[in-house]
Amino acid sequence: MNVTLHGRARHFRTVTFDVRLNAVLLIEQRLLPHEFRIVAARDFRQTARAIQDMIVRGAGAIGATAAYGLAQGARAFRGRRLADFQRHVGVVSRTLKAARPTAVDPVNAIHYVAQAMRAGRTVAERQTLALAAAEEFANQDVRHCEAIGQHGARLIRNGMNVLTHCNAGWLAFVDIGSATAPLYAAQARGRKFHVYCDETRPRSQGATLTAWELAQQGVSHQIIADNAAGHLMQRGKIDLVIVGSDRTLGRTGEVTNKIGTYTKAVLARRHGIPFYVAIPLSTIDWHLKSGFDIPIEERHESEVLGAWGIQAASSRSRSRRRAYVRVANPTSGALNPGFDVTPAELITGIITPVGILKPRELWTRRRELGWPG
Amino acid sequence: MNVTLHGRARHFRTVTFDVRLNAVLLIEQRLLPHEFRIVAARDFRQTARAIQDMIVRGAGAIGATAAYGLAQGARAFRGRRLADFQRHVGVVSRTLKAARPTAVDPVNAIHYVAQAMRAGRTVAERQTLALAAAEEFANQDVRHCEAIGQHGARLIRNGMNVLTHCNAGWLAFVDIGSATAPLYAAQARGRKFHVYCDETRPRSQGATLTAWELAQQGVSHQIIADNAAGHLMQRGKIDLVIVGSDRTLGRTGEVTNKIGTYTKAVLARRHGIPFYVAIPLSTIDWHLKSGFDIPIEERHESEVLGAWGIQAASSRSRSRRRAYVRVANPTSGALNPGFDVTPAELITGIITPVGILKPRELWTRRRELGWPG
Repeated sequence: MNVTLHGRARHFRTVTFDVRLNAVLLIEQRLLPHEFRIVAARDFRQTARAIQDMIVRGAGAIGATAAYGLAQGARAFRGRRLADFQRHVGVVSRTLKAARPTAVDPVNAIHYVAQAMRAGRTVAERQTLALAAAEEFANQDVRHCEAIGQHGARLIRNGMNVLTHCNAGWLAFVDIGSATAPLYAAQARGRKFHVYCDETRPRSQGATLTAWELAQQGVSHQIIADNAAGHLMQRGKIDLVIVGSDRTLGRTGEVTNKIGTYTKAVLARRHGIPFYVAIPLSTIDWHLKSGFDIPIEERHESEVLGAWGIQAASSRSRSRRRAYVRVANPTSGALNPGFDVTPAELITGIITPVGILKPRELWTRRRELGWPG
Repeated sequence: MNVTLHGRARHFRTVTFDVRLNAVLLIEQRLLPHEFRIVAARDFRQTARAIQDMIVRGAGAIGATAAYGLAQGARAFRGRRLADFQRHVGVVSRTLKAARPTAVDPVNAIHYVAQAMRAGRTVAERQTLALAAAEEFANQDVRHCEAIGQHGARLIRNGMNVLTHCNAGWLAFVDIGSATAPLYAAQARGRKFHVYCDETRPRSQGATLTAWELAQQGVSHQIIADNAAGHLMQRGKIDLVIVGSDRTLGRTGEVTNKIGTYTKAVLARRHGIPFYVAIPLSTIDWHLKSGFDIPIEERHESEVLGAWGIQAASSRSRSRRRAYVRVANPTSGALNPGFDVTPAELITGIITPVGILKPRELWTRRRELGWPG
């Protein structure tokens, strides 16, 4: 999407690859919305750390980052023996997959690149194929998001109030986003609507990333505390909910997404408000049989016990610096599950690149959705 | 309750009155949990501002503060004509009531003190009666909270996990608290249980005040993001919810409380988890006929757009200072409703000083609950 820097709009993707440097280039998302900076991960371990430390986050974005990371790792191999190369590729793959255990996109991305490499007969051929596959994986993410936008735009009518949770915007993908794609497509069709962004504690991706994106694209929006959605629904102020997903089970239609998503789905059901999940095909997990089998990442308690933001460096200075404040009682601890699972029965529809499906249709239409087996 | 300062436990009430200074003494709750300080509001306008600015907050505490504030205003009157005195009392009452429009305790408190004053035939007599009535209002709040604890303690069994929202602890009352009273009473009976404190954005009263209280009293607890309660319920990790209220309708059993309470009630219902509201009688509004008539305070957007906490003053210094950080995108705004309304059908029981009632029983048993007419 376009970002306005120094008064001039420029197009950016969230994740790209620099062939000469053999580096993955990432928007440093932890600095947004207060600073826009591109950083380079110069080897696969740095790339894995960028995923783990959330320099890059979001389903599609970490998928593409993992794809590029595998190509990067493969291209750094110095040697000619295929067996050694494949052992090295195994280390790279495992390192990248371990960075965020709840997400399935990195797993699918690595599988995609690893499969494509097999056609190469030499190390050099496999290195070339790995990069081509990673580029194709990233491009496919963009095409999927574009298609989600076209299918989803018809849900958004003039005057609607739309609730979204966390950031499933273009920053969470290579471009365009999943949950935001219908918004951007509806905007392009001239529709007028308003978006409520859940702030999405503890990491506040709604207040920081989604709000920044919507402001950049000129979409009318307000941030709300996560606590406020129920009240707004009760007062008739929300017409539609669209969220993304970090892992959607192809067999059951269960949706894993940022902690708090399940709560919004329960509230939407009580108020008869349509609840949609937007996903590219790479977010589908075809293997797991139950949402209870999804590993739920437990993140550090410091996220819940405080907040990151910017503050004036001093009362006399106009410069601002990034700071963490401890909000909570210093002698108390926190529990910090990063994700939750929403059952299929609470989901009105899943907006996919091939159309809007009922959750159970993921399985019945699995052949056109990329089911591997 | 007791607060340990410099290694020594001392007993404090949240609100007291200094007769010599004609001042309302308040725990400066905005500094907690990082600093414990008592401040003096030296005239009724300072007292009203202390309520508005949330130096003191919580249903019972602002009720008692308003009661003392009216006595304080009455005692400051210099003159002998009753008509002038009553005009002055009218100004004091309106100023105190306007400070927090959603709460009913200040309204009830002012009514109580104003009624008691009428028995006086001179200004001096009315001034004396006002202070006596304010003291009685505060003492009654303490007795009500003690009774809530005795009735509610039977809900808490060994091994239970209890969820609470915001702070309806002793800091929200004159002493003991409403939602926390059953916890403290159960602890006194030797029961072992664990409390999850919703952090309660945007003002984080759960992470700051409730967590501090529970830590002071040695109750096992963890802070969670407001987004996490649904997930914990889904995984069977919450057995009971107890919250407080800022205004409960005697006619309908509808409960107004801190924004996010309604969401927890909807989640509890879905999971078959008992949802209790603990209130002293001063929190009952006998006049309003519908929850939709309750004025919902809209607070400043800065609360949602950032967070208050403490930070190390510099990397070399061990001293810490209170700071506000802006978390959200700088070009985005926020919507900040302070309260929501939970319908009677979602409430398992209301823990009152006279026992645990069904919401509808507030009306059928109104004569023993202080119904004014």
